Parts: sequence; structure tokens; C-alpha cells
Amino acid sequence: MARWQPDAPQRLALAALELFEERGYEQTSVIDIAERAGLTKSTFFRHFRDKREVLFGGETMSARVAGAITAAPATATALEAVAAALDAAGREAFTPDRRDFSLRRRAVIAAHPELQERDALKGLAITAAMTTALQQRGVPTLTASVTAQLAALAAAIAYGRWSDPANTDDYPTLARRALHEVRAAAVQDPR
Amino acid sequence: MARWQPDAPQRLALAALELFEERGYEQTSVIDIAERAGLTKSTFFRHFRDKREVLFGGETMSARVAGAITAAPATATALEAVAAALDAAGREAFTPDRRDFSLRRRAVIAAHPELQERDALKGLAITAAMTTALQQRGVPTLTASVTAQLAALAAAIAYGRWSDPANTDDYPTLARRALHEVRAAAVQDPR
Repeated sequence: MARWQPDAPQRLALAALELFEERGYEQTSVIDIAERAGLTKSTFFRHFRDKREVLFGGETMSARVAGAITAAPATATALEAVAAALDAAGREAFTPDRRDFSLRRRAVIAAHPELQERDALKGLAITAAMTTALQQRGVPTLTASVTAQLAALAAAIAYGRWSDPANTDDYPTLARRALHEVRAAAVQDPR
Repeated sequence: MARWQPDAPQRLALAALELFEERGYEQTSVIDIAERAGLTKSTFFRHFRDKREVLFGGETMSARVAGAITAAPATATALEAVAAALDAAGREAFTPDRRDFSLRRRAVIAAHPELQERDALKGLAITAAMTTALQQRGVPTLTASVTAQLAALAAAIAYGRWSDPANTDDYPTLARRALHEVRAAAVQDPR
């Protein structure tokens, strides 16, 4: 147990998901989660600051999308940079082998107000991280904010389609399509 | 104490704000808030479902903005309908006599992660309420979603400007200006 556990965050998240499904969020303790994962409570708190955080992977996603925006070619537009960010998010969380986990996670969040709140705050943090990363590329503040908002909306639409059982497209394809649609809707005269 | 208290929600919110400022959110109980307001715990729970909710006025704001969108003239565009929603929000919460309360409330929320989470979820609920109200006017789903997102961003920008001590414009004026700027930024080719 003392040795380094490289997959500890994933094991803890899966254990938490199972327990939240089985007995609910309130009835599950951090100790329960650590035990189910075969890890200790102190390992839990090395990776997550509280019980709510276990399904949200710490700051991983914000860092991932901001990193992708920063790494986009200097010639990329703001829209191209956020498209790269959605690709990166997809590679992180929305791969075929993560599909079952992702859908179960979404259902558990929807069933628990405490998790909905954390999810909402994480969403704002990701949008803020995209805005800041765009500004650091020299994108004007307002354009950065608007582009990040549209990207967040596109990500939500793409996720909805990706989680549809009938869907066969991968997440990056869906994300780019949604971004294109959202941009088109923003540009048209709104009636 | 048994008689009807029409201003109970406002009194409870102000009492909570004072206590959160004085001793912090964690160190304040619902009973403390009710006592400070000269009301009972059961009156508190008649208006708010938990301690977090006391600074968020129940579902008032979502209902208010959705109502304004529904009431906008049939000829109004989606953008004009959300402009009317921001006007209504301003009349509800961002009047000159509510300015001090509003700024103190914002500072207390920023200082408490629990309140930030509830605030984030409320923001999503308001955006969702605007989206639904637009759809009910016949606005296509994607346009409704995009317009509501842009309105939410404009509202945040307008609030920031309204709360600036140097500002002399009223909230509806600031909101319409921000909505115009956000829309212009969305339409331009994003570089």
C-alpha cells in the first residue's frame, strides 16, 4: 500500500462511482471509497480535497484545455484554438473505453444536487481557463470570453451526442461539428 | 411572530449576509440567521431549502427572466427578448437601493466555496430557463441556447460594470450595451 499508485485517482473515482450508485452520495464516506479502491484515506486526500471532488479529477481538465489552447499554432484563430482544446478534452475523458464510466458518472451527478453544484463550478472554471489561455495568445478579452462560452456550449452538445447509444462518431468529430453549428447560430441574425 | 411576514426572505438574506461577514459561513447556523432576523427556523425553511440557498432567493430570478422572455412582444427577436430579461433581472436585483447589499453579497460568495458552487448552479439554471423560454417562443433550440449563453455573459459583464464605484449608469443601460458588445464579438471573425 505504501508504494506509488499511478492509477490511484482512477481507482478512487471508479470506487466512488460504484458506491454512489449502490447506496447514494450521502451514505458513502471517504473511508468507504478508499477501502473499495484498496487504498488509504490519506491517499484519497492526496488526490482530492473532499468527497465531492472524486468524480471531477482535481484540476486536470482545466489544465488540459488551457494547455491545448496555449500549444495551438500561432496562426490559429481563437475558434481553432478552442477546437484544439475540445480535442484534448475528448482524448482525456471521452474515449471509447471511458464511455461506460462517463455515462454512469453523468447519471450519478444528475441524481445528486451536491455533485451538480461541483459540476457547475468545474464548468465555470474550465470556461475561465479557456478565456485566460485565449487572452494570453493576444485574443481581446471580449472575444476570448465569447469564444470560450461558445466552446463550452459546443462541448455540452457534443457530449450529449457522443453519449447517445446510436452514435458512432468519435468525440473530436462531434465537438468540431458542434462548434461549427454553434458558431453559425451565433453569427446568424437571431429571430 | 405567527403573523405573515411579507419581507421575511429579504430579512433572512440580510441577516445571513451580516453573519457570514462577521463569522463566516461555516460558523453560522440556520437558527442564528432566523434569530438575527427576528424570525423562526420554520419560517426560514418555508422560504429556503437549506443554508446555502438564503443568498439566492429561491427560484425568483429564473422565473423572473423566463417571464420577461415570454412577455416580450411576438415581433421581438431572440436577442430583444433576452434584453427584456436582463432589464427584468436588473429591476429585481440591481437597483440603486440594492447596490450595497449586492456588492456585499458578491464578496461573501467569492469568499466561500460552498456559496460559489450554489451560485454556479443558479447561473446554469437561469441560462436554462432563458433557453426554454426562447424555445417556447419558437426560437430554434441551437439559437435559443447560443442566445441564452451570450445573455448570461452580457449579464456578468454588466454586473461587473454596475458594481464599479465610478459607474453612474443604471443596470438596464449597462446590460443592453454589454449584450450589444457580446453579440458584435460573436459575429466578428474570431482571431
